[in-house]
Amino acid sequence: MSVALVGAGPGDPELITVRGLKRLRECEVLVYDRLVSEELLDEAPAGALRIARDDFKQDDVNRLLVMHGRNGRRVVRLKGGDPFVFGRGGEEALALAEAGIPFELVPGVSSLSAVPESVGIPVTHRGVSSTVTAFAANDVESLDAAALARVPGTLVAFMGGAVVGRLAERLIEHGKASSTPAAVISSGTTEREQVVTAPLGAIAAAARDLPTPALVVIGDVVAVREALGALRRSAA
Amino acid sequence: MSVALVGAGPGDPELITVRGLKRLRECEVLVYDRLVSEELLDEAPAGALRIARDDFKQDDVNRLLVMHGRNGRRVVRLKGGDPFVFGRGGEEALALAEAGIPFELVPGVSSLSAVPESVGIPVTHRGVSSTVTAFAANDVESLDAAALARVPGTLVAFMGGAVVGRLAERLIEHGKASSTPAAVISSGTTEREQVVTAPLGAIAAAARDLPTPALVVIGDVVAVREALGALRRSAA
Repeated sequence: MSVALVGAGPGDPELITVRGLKRLRECEVLVYDRLVSEELLDEAPAGALRIARDDFKQDDVNRLLVMHGRNGRRVVRLKGGDPFVFGRGGEEALALAEAGIPFELVPGVSSLSAVPESVGIPVTHRGVSSTVTAFAANDVESLDAAALARVPGTLVAFMGGAVVGRLAERLIEHGKASSTPAAVISSGTTEREQVVTAPLGAIAAAARDLPTPALVVIGDVVAVREALGALRRSAA
Repeated sequence: MSVALVGAGPGDPELITVRGLKRLRECEVLVYDRLVSEELLDEAPAGALRIARDDFKQDDVNRLLVMHGRNGRRVVRLKGGDPFVFGRGGEEALALAEAGIPFELVPGVSSLSAVPESVGIPVTHRGVSSTVTAFAANDVESLDAAALARVPGTLVAFMGGAVVGRLAERLIEHGKASSTPAAVISSGTTEREQVVTAPLGAIAAAARDLPTPALVVIGDVVAVREALGALRRSAA
């Protein structure tokens, strides 16, 4: 395959897949997202051409991949998390397919579950939640808050850190209990990880000082973290 | 850490994480799910004690992990997908915490996105879906079908293969269009992978002969697969 769309995982460099690391170590051209860790970028061969994705618009990234793929170079497009979960991997795959360039998809560990997991929150938990809804929260006013407030189980808001106050307000307006446990997790799975938990009605104030990028988790599963934490403390 | 709860990924053995494989290669006791591939089990040291999880009830699995953990053995609990996405990892973590046994969570690539990805379906796609709701479908009559029919974006039903007919009926009864694109994917990411797509109203008949386990995907993103597939065929 000339182009591999590879998920780098949620932040911790050891959470890339075995196949993803293999492709990275063999690449000739590496197009990477800003959020991918330095340790992973260092796994590419010293002679590989390195291109930071953030210097380009999406259309230009697509064109870059097509151009280097057409030249027969071994290209790795390294994306945070999973390429197909809020990663725009579908657009890149379509551009490659349109141009007739062979490509491969290598999934990654998504922040969806790994970031909550990293702070002791299972997005599903027997007797607590058997449904999880993940959504992109950046355009918070356009969300169907009524539907999101009503769907059972856990909510996971990507790019939710900057809009958590408005998100909480809209969900509560549409009937979500303001006492619902909530968490904001910044730089999950990395050394800079920070987490704040509070009831939904108070989460924005509690998380005010957390840097972005941050994931917001809303639902009773957040309380499992408290149980795990309390047990661990009493054991220590 | 004496016990590691490790996600094996969706089926393909190279989709385990680098850290997960490291823990597996160092373990003294391996407790594994039936769905984990033989190739991965072979990565455990030859002398490791191997225990198939399916011979035990969940409470007994918890007790096994506590017992071997308490003896200071390096235990790996290897689970399909991600331990915290329909994996009951939270229950095992709580049992270990209650017993005061140190443990580590190593996330895995979940079937949630990797199985659809494997057949060319992005669970999110710009302009098509920015929300994905995953749920356990086995107890299909207890699902809140009204909420699931109304939530925007993509639906992913775990353990959905055996109940896809009833699931489709219930969603359509609650207003989901019977023309909504749907897919059933059996043994995703493995050599036995099979996929069938059809409109929601016809998916049960179309997927009748697919073996379980199977994941059901419902939403307009299923059509991205057709676009990718057509482009690839015309390029071939």
